[in-house]
Amino acid sequence: MAEMNRQIILTARPVGFPKDSDFEMVETPIPEPGDGEIVIQTHYLSVDPYMRGRMNEGRSYAKGVDIGEVMVGGAVGAVVASKHPGFSEGDFANASIGWQAYGAIEGKAARKVDPDLAPISTSLGILGMPGATAYFGLLEVGQPKEGETVVVAGAAGAVGSLVGQIAKIKGCRAVGIAGTDEKVAYVTDGLGFDSGFNYKTTEDYGAALQELCPDGIDVYFDNVGGKISDAIFPLMNLNGRIPVCGQISQYNLTEPEMGPRFTWFFISKRLRMQGFLVFDFADQYDAAIQEMAGWLKEDKLRYREDVVEGLENAPAAFTGMLRGDNIGKRVVKVI
Amino acid sequence: MAEMNRQIILTARPVGFPKDSDFEMVETPIPEPGDGEIVIQTHYLSVDPYMRGRMNEGRSYAKGVDIGEVMVGGAVGAVVASKHPGFSEGDFANASIGWQAYGAIEGKAARKVDPDLAPISTSLGILGMPGATAYFGLLEVGQPKEGETVVVAGAAGAVGSLVGQIAKIKGCRAVGIAGTDEKVAYVTDGLGFDSGFNYKTTEDYGAALQELCPDGIDVYFDNVGGKISDAIFPLMNLNGRIPVCGQISQYNLTEPEMGPRFTWFFISKRLRMQGFLVFDFADQYDAAIQEMAGWLKEDKLRYREDVVEGLENAPAAFTGMLRGDNIGKRVVKVI
Repeated sequence: MAEMNRQIILTARPVGFPKDSDFEMVETPIPEPGDGEIVIQTHYLSVDPYMRGRMNEGRSYAKGVDIGEVMVGGAVGAVVASKHPGFSEGDFANASIGWQAYGAIEGKAARKVDPDLAPISTSLGILGMPGATAYFGLLEVGQPKEGETVVVAGAAGAVGSLVGQIAKIKGCRAVGIAGTDEKVAYVTDGLGFDSGFNYKTTEDYGAALQELCPDGIDVYFDNVGGKISDAIFPLMNLNGRIPVCGQISQYNLTEPEMGPRFTWFFISKRLRMQGFLVFDFADQYDAAIQEMAGWLKEDKLRYREDVVEGLENAPAAFTGMLRGDNIGKRVVKVI
Repeated sequence: MAEMNRQIILTARPVGFPKDSDFEMVETPIPEPGDGEIVIQTHYLSVDPYMRGRMNEGRSYAKGVDIGEVMVGGAVGAVVASKHPGFSEGDFANASIGWQAYGAIEGKAARKVDPDLAPISTSLGILGMPGATAYFGLLEVGQPKEGETVVVAGAAGAVGSLVGQIAKIKGCRAVGIAGTDEKVAYVTDGLGFDSGFNYKTTEDYGAALQELCPDGIDVYFDNVGGKISDAIFPLMNLNGRIPVCGQISQYNLTEPEMGPRFTWFFISKRLRMQGFLVFDFADQYDAAIQEMAGWLKEDKLRYREDVVEGLENAPAAFTGMLRGDNIGKRVVKVI
């Protein structure tokens, strides 16, 4: 009997945190490439916070996944069949083929991955979308200047861990917020952040931030939102910048959350808050990855991966990531 | 007996809307100019929303007025004594001398007013701080492009009425929100806004905006905040801009107001929200006033003044302005 493809499909729209019954694994034939397409055998797939939005119906910046469709997401693996001149069998490629063991996709929508540059899984993290998100969000939107203070929550995650390190490369003070003492130790001792605190054991975020940011906050890289943002606003410096990358604290709420209105701070501090998507910087993407790869080689950037084994565990890996189980970039190892 | 100066001093920090007993009128000697100073006899003084912040203790972007001090604010009048080479007796000058009949101030902190350009009272409105606020906030921060939709609340006020008209000059659709049907008629029929609605008689702001902004909202000039902003966010277009100029809906609250969190829209719509103060554009101020004066002469800009007679009525004129009693720029005529 021929080997089959395995796919994780969305079977129900999650209410709050996704649960196992919102997904199902199905077997289907391994796809053949159409003209201009390649077929990738997935080695690693990515689980990222933005996917929670795609599980909803038409509420995100991109179309949601339909019920019965394969869950979307980035993956990296070996090209096993190619009808695109840019790829040969045995190449490694990164593309949004979703949560499945094999995926067919147009070659022009795939990115070749050099296994000699770094392990191919990094194309889902530091040398991929999360890396570019940190890079462009901090540098292009946040525009940190030497000597300024940069605060990031989700500091031990795929994006946050890079935001703080890039801030350090640019001569800033980097302060990280994370959900366990181990994560705080990881970003300070392991990654060189100047300081950090555990938001789950800290009662007064404002007091903690005031202590850790004696010169105020110039850039708040907002990937979390909610109560952490509430504590940040009063401490922002004049002409502070707030790149908005995510709102993970809000993604699994079943009722919209209310919070204190903070628009006044925009006037008193002349703040600029700006949302961005990494896709907005597509034309500069390769240059950013090259620069990050250089920093990686020089040990100016470090990363950690949190590897969950087995395609069948992708839904649990995803939900655990939303809950903060991981330190570093969480990926699912498929083979 | 020599003529005396009259001053309105702050006697108590208002709680919520200011009341008469928060102010007192006192008589003091008419000041003499020190070296480099001029003395202005006030013809008109300005009442503006920002003054509410100055009545609080250290909560605004500038130092609050101390108890027992003259209320701050812009005024225009005749120079009656000068020890500054730039001013002669009989000149007209605009300066922040506060709520008083005579004020001494350094000549370099005063701006000469040309009574032939327009009535001198306009130096407190369309050709003064409110005019420059509308000009820089919309054009520099909001960056409207031809064919886009600009929404402004407080549309019949000193700033809002200009925002919509400048938007029209730039080829945009201008939609105004105001608190009476008369005001809505004024901005649409009188000032050329494309449409508007009365927020006090409209239940569903979102539905009203959706109808009046069929192509969505590109620039929301936020001078009000609160529930109007809540209705705006879901209707903002991709890459929308939100210059933040004021939050008049919040100034008299005794408890901070809660509102739905809206940061998610920053990501899905890639919004940019930016606070500004007109003082940030001080070096371009004169050029802006000149351009506005030109538009005024060409009848591309119109204005209305709401004149309250008598220095003693300044506190009531101010509080009434906060409540929205005025159509157009409210000034107090002192002599």
